[in-house]
Parts: sequence; structure tokens; C-alpha cells
Amino acid sequence: HQLDASRPTKSQELYVYEINERDRGSPAYLRLSQKSVNSLGDLVPFSNKVYSGDLQKRLGITAGICVLIRNVPEMKGDVYESIYSFYFGDYGHIAVQGSYLTHQDSYLAVTGGTGFFEGVYGQVKLQQIVFPFKLFYTFYLKGIPDLPAELLAKPVPPSPTVEPSPAAKACEPGATLPNYTD
Amino acid sequence: HQLDASRPTKSQELYVYEINERDRGSPAYLRLSQKSVNSLGDLVPFSNKVYSGDLQKRLGITAGICVLIRNVPEMKGDVYESIYSFYFGDYGHIAVQGSYLTHQDSYLAVTGGTGFFEGVYGQVKLQQIVFPFKLFYTFYLKGIPDLPAELLAKPVPPSPTVEPSPAAKACEPGATLPNYTD
Amino acid sequence: HQLDASRPTKSQELYVYEINERDRGSPAYLRLSQKSVNSLGDLVPFSNKVYSGDLQKRLGITAGICVLIRNVPEMKGDVYESIYSFYFGDYGHIAVQGSYLTHQDSYLAVTGGTGFFEGVYGQVKLQQIVFPFKLFYTFYLKGIPDLPAELLAKPVPPSPTVEPSPAAKACEPGATLPNYTD
Repeated sequence: HQLDASRPTKSQELYVYEINERDRGSPAYLRLSQKSVNSLGDLVPFSNKVYSGDLQKRLGITAGICVLIRNVPEMKGDVYESIYSFYFGDYGHIAVQGSYLTHQDSYLAVTGGTGFFEGVYGQVKLQQIVFPFKLFYTFYLKGIPDLPAELLAKPVPPSPTVEPSPAAKACEPGATLPNYTD
Repeated sequence: HQLDASRPTKSQELYVYEINERDRGSPAYLRLSQKSVNSLGDLVPFSNKVYSGDLQKRLGITAGICVLIRNVPEMKGDVYESIYSFYFGDYGHIAVQGSYLTHQDSYLAVTGGTGFFEGVYGQVKLQQIVFPFKLFYTFYLKGIPDLPAELLAKPVPPSPTVEPSPAAKACEPGATLPNYTD
Repeated sequence: HQLDASRPTKSQELYVYEINERDRGSPAYLRLSQKSVNSLGDLVPFSNKVYSGDLQKRLGITAGICVLIRNVPEMKGDVYESIYSFYFGDYGHIAVQGSYLTHQDSYLAVTGGTGFFEGVYGQVKLQQIVFPFKLFYTFYLKGIPDLPAELLAKPVPPSPTVEPSPAAKACEPGATLPNYTD
């Protein structure tokens, strides 16, 4: 076999916000358990908008499904198994899988990617800010070239009041990734 | 830790056709959104047949699920998040995740594999030929040994008229992979 | 790029039991095909308990979904595409994808992980013991540091009569992983 050492193993951090602006019909809570309390059997397809960590650029969307695993009444929360992707326009996408808890932070596995993210692996930290409308993610990415400058902006610290810039929200020229995903 | 350099990072191309011969009850369009237009909430489990790129061998099947993300009326198309696997009989399988668009090509992430494909990573290009019955895939695979000769056949260029050979369609001896998946 | 050789490629075996104690409402068989025989269209979210191979420790849970692909009447069995994770308390989780057959063993791909399992790849052998209540798994894991001693216990050979120890079943102190997942 041809062998080489071309797969970088250093970890790079990528910060993004996922924001539900309530204009995509998301999430679609499918109460297939037919129970009055959220229960195993319920499925939740979803797709929200993704912004850069500094909230100055629209990057793309999330897309995927949450599988309700367990209702945790003492935490007033739910545990989901989540399988979804983050889309970054011309840069491609990152696929993830892991648990999503409505009442605490969690880590998900980075399972693969395309385009700039071809060969990616690592994990991502999910921080709930305003359930279920604002989330902050810190990716720890390996296996890819150095991230481009436009994905390296210094993040705004997560807080309930964060909002994308008006230009990013309006997807104005210069306030999106090239061919941002919608 | 014991370290070595045994994971090949060169990229190998693998060409396959996915063909829906309408004999597997696939796809199962589950209109769980309960809307008249395809909408978030709809789910589409599917399983089709997989043939070699030269259409001379039945390799196995695809198996998985598409999550409807968005209807795009101006393109008369739909965007799905797809999570599925390609099965290759005794050679094992390749798992993928990414977007499937009914109206244009896309790339999906290769997230893992078994058997010959244990440790695989990379990406795969999906080309729609005749929606939703014929698709052509070009895998760019890393992390695995050299592909065996029977998976390296020169592909027939994709076109609406391509058909598997009668022997492959009939799964005759010599026209399938060993223990091809069905 | 900064390159190094820090991703171990040796294979380590990890043995676990998955046991359905019928106290989690799992599995939720969603007969969305609306057919009397299990058919494409049916979905099966599930979550069961995970014990160490020696059955002396509760490790955590499984969580995910099976997509019914095909009923195989001649084998009195079903073929599923399975997408799920194994949770190991403070050690994090392992995500897998592949086929689950109710009537024979199979291999699934390890697609990623978090925490101790960040960067994991490889495959896992699934052995049915008592359908659908007891399963035995042998993971072949690469890309991670040496497994900790408490995950290296010598497994009890799979048989229909295996049971977790009373202490593990009761999640008594010393009979669980730290912060085992529930």
C-alpha cells in the first residue's frame, strides 16, 4: 500500500451557533408513541440555521433527526439520540451522532464530512442556551487541513440575548459563506 | 501505545449503480407531516439493489432512511438528510451520511465500514440519473487495503438507458459478488 | 500542517452485553408500513441496558433506531438497518451503524465516539443470544488509548442463561461505571 502521513491529527476548534428562527417548520415533533408524555417512539426531524461563532455570518443549516430515548421528569427534560449534519455551503458538511439533552450540555461524535471536511473526525460540545431555539457548539476537529480564516472568527460568549447580526440574518453579500446552505 | 502506520491514506475510487427495480416495496414514503406538500416530518425508509459500475455484477443492496428537510418548489425538488449503508456481500458494508437532493448531485460522508471496509473513511459523490430509480455513485475511499479486482471494473458512463446485464439482474453464478446481499 | 503519529491503530477488544429488562418501554415497534407483516416503513426506536462482559458492572445504555429493511420468512427473521450508540457514563460513547438480523450474527461499523472514545473507529460483532432480550457484542476498536482496566474484564461466554450480577442489576456502588448512563 501507498502510505503517507497526510492526515493531520491536531485538534482545531470551530464555534458555531444553531438558531431556530421559527421559519422552517422545525422541529416536527412526531408523537408516534401516542402517549401524553414524551416517550420512546417519538421522533423529531429538525432543521435550523447555522451562524458563525461571532454571529456575523450565516454559514448554513443543520438537518437531521432526534430519537426520543427517555423523559426525565425530575430534570424536567428529555434525552434524545441525535443524528444530524451541519452544512457549510461550498465548504461541505460535518455529520454527527450522540446524545442531546434538553437540560444539560453534551458531547456528540463527529462521524465524517465532505468537501473541506472530508476525512474529519473528533467530537463536538453542545451547549443549550435558550431551549430549543439557541444552541452553541464547539467542534474539536481532526483529520482536516487548517480551517479557513472565515471560520476562525472569535466567538461571542453564549448568552440568552445573543442574536445574529442583521446582515447575517438577511443573508446579505459578505455576511454569508460562499453558497451558504439554506 | 503501540503505534504504526498501517492505515492507508491514499484515495481509491469505487463506482456503483443503485437501481430501484420496484420489487422491494421501496421507498416507503411516510407522510408523517400530514401535509399535502412534502414537508419536514416526512420520513422515507428505502432499500434498493446495488450493481458494479460496469453493470456486470450484482453487489448487494442499499438500506437506510431519508429525512425530508425541505421542499424546494422553484427547483421542483426536495432536500433530504440521508443515513444509509451499501452492502457488498462477503466484503462487508460502507455507512454514509449526508444530503440527497432530488434535483442535483451531492456528496455524502463515508462514516465507517465493516469487513474489507473496516476503518474506511472519505466521501461519495451521488449522481441522479433517473429520479428516483437510477443513481450512480463514485466513492473516494481511504483507510482500507487495495480494492479487489472485482470491484475495480471500468464503469459504464451514467445515462438514462443504462441497465444491469441480464445475468447480473438474474443473480446468475459469476454475475454476483460472493454471498451478495439481498 | 502539524502532523504527528498520535492516533493508535492497534485493535483492542471490548466485550459488552446488551440486556432488555423490559423496564424502559423498549423497543417501540412503530408499524408505519400499516402492513400485517413486518415491512419496509416500520421503524423501531429502542434503548436497553449495557453491562460489562463479565456481567459484574452496569456500564450504561444503548440508544437509537432500527429501520426495518426486509422480512425474511424462510428464516423467520427480519433485516434491520441500525443506527445507535453505546453510552459508558463518564467514559463517553461509541456510535455504530450497520445491519441487525434477528436470526444471525452481524457486524456493524464504529463511526465515532466521544470522551475516552474520541476518534474511535473499527467494527463490532453482534451476537444474538435470546431474541430480542440478550445480545453480546465484541468491539474491535482502533484510534483510542489503551482501554482502562474496568473495561477489560474477561467476558462470560454468551449463553441463554447469562444474567448480570445482582449488584450490577441494582446499580450498587462499585458495580457501575462512574456516572453510568441510565
